[in-house]
Amino acid sequence: MTEIRPVEWRDGRVRFLDQTLLPERETYVDAADEHVLADAIRRLAIRGAPLIGVAVAYGVALAAARAAESGVADARSRIASAIDLLAATRPTAVNLFWALERQRQVLRRMSDAALPALAEALLSEARAVHSEDADRCDRMAATGASLLKTGSAVLTHCNSGALATGGRGTALGVIVRAWEDGAVRHVYVDETRPLLQGARLTAWELEQRKVPYTVITDSTAGMLMAQGRVQAVLVGADRIAANGDVANKVGTYALAVLAHHHRMPFLVVAPTSTIDMECPNGGAVPIEERNAAEVTQIGGTRLTPQGATAYAPAFDVTPHDLITVIVTDAGAAFPPFGDSIRSMTDHAKG
Amino acid sequence: MTEIRPVEWRDGRVRFLDQTLLPERETYVDAADEHVLADAIRRLAIRGAPLIGVAVAYGVALAAARAAESGVADARSRIASAIDLLAATRPTAVNLFWALERQRQVLRRMSDAALPALAEALLSEARAVHSEDADRCDRMAATGASLLKTGSAVLTHCNSGALATGGRGTALGVIVRAWEDGAVRHVYVDETRPLLQGARLTAWELEQRKVPYTVITDSTAGMLMAQGRVQAVLVGADRIAANGDVANKVGTYALAVLAHHHRMPFLVVAPTSTIDMECPNGGAVPIEERNAAEVTQIGGTRLTPQGATAYAPAFDVTPHDLITVIVTDAGAAFPPFGDSIRSMTDHAKG
Repeated sequence: MTEIRPVEWRDGRVRFLDQTLLPERETYVDAADEHVLADAIRRLAIRGAPLIGVAVAYGVALAAARAAESGVADARSRIASAIDLLAATRPTAVNLFWALERQRQVLRRMSDAALPALAEALLSEARAVHSEDADRCDRMAATGASLLKTGSAVLTHCNSGALATGGRGTALGVIVRAWEDGAVRHVYVDETRPLLQGARLTAWELEQRKVPYTVITDSTAGMLMAQGRVQAVLVGADRIAANGDVANKVGTYALAVLAHHHRMPFLVVAPTSTIDMECPNGGAVPIEERNAAEVTQIGGTRLTPQGATAYAPAFDVTPHDLITVIVTDAGAAFPPFGDSIRSMTDHAKG
Repeated sequence: MTEIRPVEWRDGRVRFLDQTLLPERETYVDAADEHVLADAIRRLAIRGAPLIGVAVAYGVALAAARAAESGVADARSRIASAIDLLAATRPTAVNLFWALERQRQVLRRMSDAALPALAEALLSEARAVHSEDADRCDRMAATGASLLKTGSAVLTHCNSGALATGGRGTALGVIVRAWEDGAVRHVYVDETRPLLQGARLTAWELEQRKVPYTVITDSTAGMLMAQGRVQAVLVGADRIAANGDVANKVGTYALAVLAHHHRMPFLVVAPTSTIDMECPNGGAVPIEERNAAEVTQIGGTRLTPQGATAYAPAFDVTPHDLITVIVTDAGAAFPPFGDSIRSMTDHAKG
């Protein structure tokens, strides 16, 4: 199996796979500075909450490396600006802020260090963010796969695989692992309008891994559930509030309501870095609104009449009472989520 | 207001608006024989259950007119073949079979008539199917609009307007009428993947009529309901079973589950010609499966990886217990639908 490496540090650059071009073309770009990286995150060439965390950690290291190379006088302020730039790319995924906070801690810890040593420490921290995320993916995959019944057909939304993380993925990592174990027999993939991360990216990953799958339009999911053709729904998360409410790709909420109506398990899979204990509930999560053109156009072709108004939220919030289990690298959290999440994060800290 | 005439009889031809080209181009085609018409129905240039009924009624008249012109010996068998051809175009919308049955009755009634008289009678019946459908739309609009609360924002799926009927529409006819009456203030339009009848056709109609609307991806509907931004859902129907189960554009079922979850009225609007008393329930309705390319491609551009499998049902079934009211030209039917539909159709017959 070819390993999918959507972001990596290579020869002093951040090499990333431009996901906007998949599945048509597999194009890698070497970002020479944090501006290229920030732009890639804004335009979703790099996407997926955990992967955004990995990318911005490398982005800070990249700014430091450039400052060290060019011998600028105000290196620390350049690094601080890079952090601000990267923090402003996307508002919802909390892993971004979490990873930048880790780099801020390195800056504080090394307030007296020389620039080369600081740059090296920031790169080392970025590598740690990356490899820890890969380990977390493996732990989530093992935990999540153990929860699925043998012979299940599962449904997933958006892309939560290797393209969305520093490792094998969150929800899709669980699904592929469960398929390897023989528990999952088929995957239904929501195409995930407007940007079609399911049809483009999840289908591409499953194709690479030879997992049997079928792409459906997002509004076909309900019919499949009613016909008994799906046994569980698995999704990732962009931010999980302290009470277990989950912000994830728009459409997740509708799937959760449908799963609830059909008394079907609804699993959220995300690393503990996605949990935001400062957010008491989903209402406190900032929801990014994208450009309406993402709905009114596909590949530059207008779908709607000229002048049509469209609304393009990137995410929605699924209340915790529609969720069966939240699978993390620290184990599976069950309701009541307020308690299970708190004890899980306390344990992770300790 | 410009009148929208998606199908009409003109100078011995059936002129139709090719809906696959909307909203980009407004192109009318003159069908000179039933084959052109059958092809237009199959490729969805003419679509919408009531409009398909109107079109096939004209199609039979067209075959008779051609036979009369060319003086063929076996005119009646040519007309019978035309009926078979048109009957095989699409399986789910029952209005098609209902309209063809009306033409078969004309054929039986006029078994001894000369061809010119028969051709004239078939055209006259087709005109009746057309104008009755327009009248039915007006009655549904009045009944349906009276059921909506003042100041409502409503959500609709697919296209059920003038482009889908011989008149002002079913669900969209109600919505536009309620907007004219001041009851509806805003319309949320599901884009309706895969063929985007919402984004392309409903948006085009609302644009023409200057009704304020917003296009959303199908999976955004749940979020709008949770936020209290929608007060009712209105959809058309392709076939209504005797127990009130409704076959309609795929995605309707998911909307019904969402409306139920949010305790929101879910209105189905369809003429009595859409009711099939021979179908005891939704399980008996044949559901058309379309070519997977409708999901994997948009405008010839492939969205998925090469070799991807997709599933493209055109319709789904909404069980009657998720429906608040079925608005027809014979009045509004409320639960229990088995009774209300029976008394409505008995009344229509009597």
